[in-house]
Amino acid sequence: MLIALFPGDGIGPEIVAEAKRVLDALAIDGLTYADGLVGGAAYKAMGHPLPRETLDIARSADAILFGAVGDPDCDALERHLRPEQAILGLRKELGLFSNLRPAKVFPELAHESALKPEVAGSIDLLIVRETNGDVYFGEKGFRTTAEGHREGYDIMSYNEAEVRRIAHAGFQAARARRGKLCSVDKANVLETSQLWRDVVIEVASDYPDVALSHMYVDNAAMQLVRNPGQFDVIVTGNLFGDILSDQASMCVGSIGMLASATLNGSGQGLYEPIHGSAPDIAGSGKANPLATILSAAMMLRYSLGLSEQADRVEAAVAQALRNGARSADLGGAMTTVEMGDAVLAAL
Amino acid sequence: MLIALFPGDGIGPEIVAEAKRVLDALAIDGLTYADGLVGGAAYKAMGHPLPRETLDIARSADAILFGAVGDPDCDALERHLRPEQAILGLRKELGLFSNLRPAKVFPELAHESALKPEVAGSIDLLIVRETNGDVYFGEKGFRTTAEGHREGYDIMSYNEAEVRRIAHAGFQAARARRGKLCSVDKANVLETSQLWRDVVIEVASDYPDVALSHMYVDNAAMQLVRNPGQFDVIVTGNLFGDILSDQASMCVGSIGMLASATLNGSGQGLYEPIHGSAPDIAGSGKANPLATILSAAMMLRYSLGLSEQADRVEAAVAQALRNGARSADLGGAMTTVEMGDAVLAAL
Ligand SMILES: CC(C)[C@H](C(=O)O)[C@@H](O)C(=O)O
Ligand SMILES: CC(C)[C@H](C(=O)O)[C@@H](O)C(=O)O
Repeated sequence: MLIALFPGDGIGPEIVAEAKRVLDALAIDGLTYADGLVGGAAYKAMGHPLPRETLDIARSADAILFGAVGDPDCDALERHLRPEQAILGLRKELGLFSNLRPAKVFPELAHESALKPEVAGSIDLLIVRETNGDVYFGEKGFRTTAEGHREGYDIMSYNEAEVRRIAHAGFQAARARRGKLCSVDKANVLETSQLWRDVVIEVASDYPDVALSHMYVDNAAMQLVRNPGQFDVIVTGNLFGDILSDQASMCVGSIGMLASATLNGSGQGLYEPIHGSAPDIAGSGKANPLATILSAAMMLRYSLGLSEQADRVEAAVAQALRNGARSADLGGAMTTVEMGDAVLAAL
Repeated sequence: MLIALFPGDGIGPEIVAEAKRVLDALAIDGLTYADGLVGGAAYKAMGHPLPRETLDIARSADAILFGAVGDPDCDALERHLRPEQAILGLRKELGLFSNLRPAKVFPELAHESALKPEVAGSIDLLIVRETNGDVYFGEKGFRTTAEGHREGYDIMSYNEAEVRRIAHAGFQAARARRGKLCSVDKANVLETSQLWRDVVIEVASDYPDVALSHMYVDNAAMQLVRNPGQFDVIVTGNLFGDILSDQASMCVGSIGMLASATLNGSGQGLYEPIHGSAPDIAGSGKANPLATILSAAMMLRYSLGLSEQADRVEAAVAQALRNGARSADLGGAMTTVEMGDAVLAAL
């Protein structure tokens, strides 16, 4: 089994290194690795944020362990050369359409949330975000209006095949959890959302055991603050999922703890922490590697079929927290490597 | 001065009636009123959520005091007949492009928020949301893909004239407050956002006294949970503003307290509570009229030039809360009319 390691920019290399140490410690037979450049690092070395070499490695791998992309040096580049294109390009080229973002509070960290502890403590939800369509990948550009004004435009769309496959992902995830699925859209304004809602309702007939509800995105943003404990699985489009999953992650309190998986139809997956490349602390040893380590655990479970090892890694992270492991973002002073050590010790 | 009263659906008539009593108590010379039907109420009586008669009243009025629209009986209607079209149509037909949504906690209600009291108590922000463009009003519809799949689509766009006028509204609001403006977009993905950001930066040169920053919408949704006290004025597009303003309002804790104004270039404005029509409690006397009363205060200030009277109404609402006035949503048992009485007593 081949794992592509794409550390990327900023703190990416430091946090991916710790996840790699944890994977090594599991001594899994037949695991091989291939390194690749992505993001600003790839642009600086090879002139493109997602070079062909990297894409070839990604295609041949069973799973990708991804750090983070984003580099202030690249802010002024044309859009197609910016670091973000690496993640957008990988999602699109590999058909990685199902982005899974679990949000759950570790009891030791509940006080870190800006929410009241009893509200934060009630959060145990999974956001299933579509990542191959929507306004992200429609035709876009600049044009001039009849009055001679510059105008920017982006076409938002979803077709029934795209909605159907992510709806199935949502229903299946709900079935494996507490059996509740909330589909989020803006069907009172958008035709894209109306199609979304119609298709989700059609797919629901295959899942009589799952309780389906619908919510407008503005209301969902409110409910995620008011009473996030009401949600089990949320399924939504690319743009709304981007916003709501970041909001939900912050409700948990510590964005340095949250993992994600993005899967295609053949079990291949990209695994990354949901936080960014944090250029301000890159190289200082302050980054928290736990979200990346937890992403590696998701990789073991979803792409490598090693759920026992996944459980072990997750248990080791929880144990390390109980033992008091705290990086700067968690109010402590431990370095990236010391946090990795703490997980290895607990393993 | 002519005020259009459009109570709309659900609790709309009850809450607008209380705001009208407060306006009457101010005994303002030369204030006249015209009633109009909007939303489901208008559809049921006249076959359209925004009948021509209503639109004519709106055009001739100096300001519109609006209750709420939304009626479950109308859920199955075609989009152009649904209650929401009343508010979208009024915004568009009257050129009401600048939606102002202040969010600030009343000290007596800080404990109502799901956020920790010290976080909720730090909120004092204003969202300036564009409401005439974006994906709301672009071409939209259904089509069939080359593979024969149903597809829904909506075109998102902004031109420089649209961005410029809302940017000015944002900078001016910031200048009148604490001098900080945060422009929210998704310029790392959307060309509409790139144009938005470029134009906001151009307009900034007219406001050297205002500190401008930019934030991606996903990060803004996080920061509104993590540290909402960092924001003074947020300026953003129609869709992101819809989501973020509802999120911010819930951070304050009591959506029954939040007012809004939507202005055009000639001082005309529509004033409405940000909460909805709450069909479940309509007619039961449980609705909290304070957001509508505070919307009437915004109307006095922005469209009628009566800022002294606006101050009096706002002070009376604060005093009523200090005196213990609490409707059901605030954990009390007072009826809609009793809440109105409490404000009148404090006036
Ligand atoms: C970097 C950016 C393009 C990306 C997105 O918007 O999808 C990120 O915010 C994410 O959520 O993975
Ligand atoms: C009712 C709906 C169309 C409307 C909107 O999305 O603008 C509402 O949510 C609002 O924010 O005023």
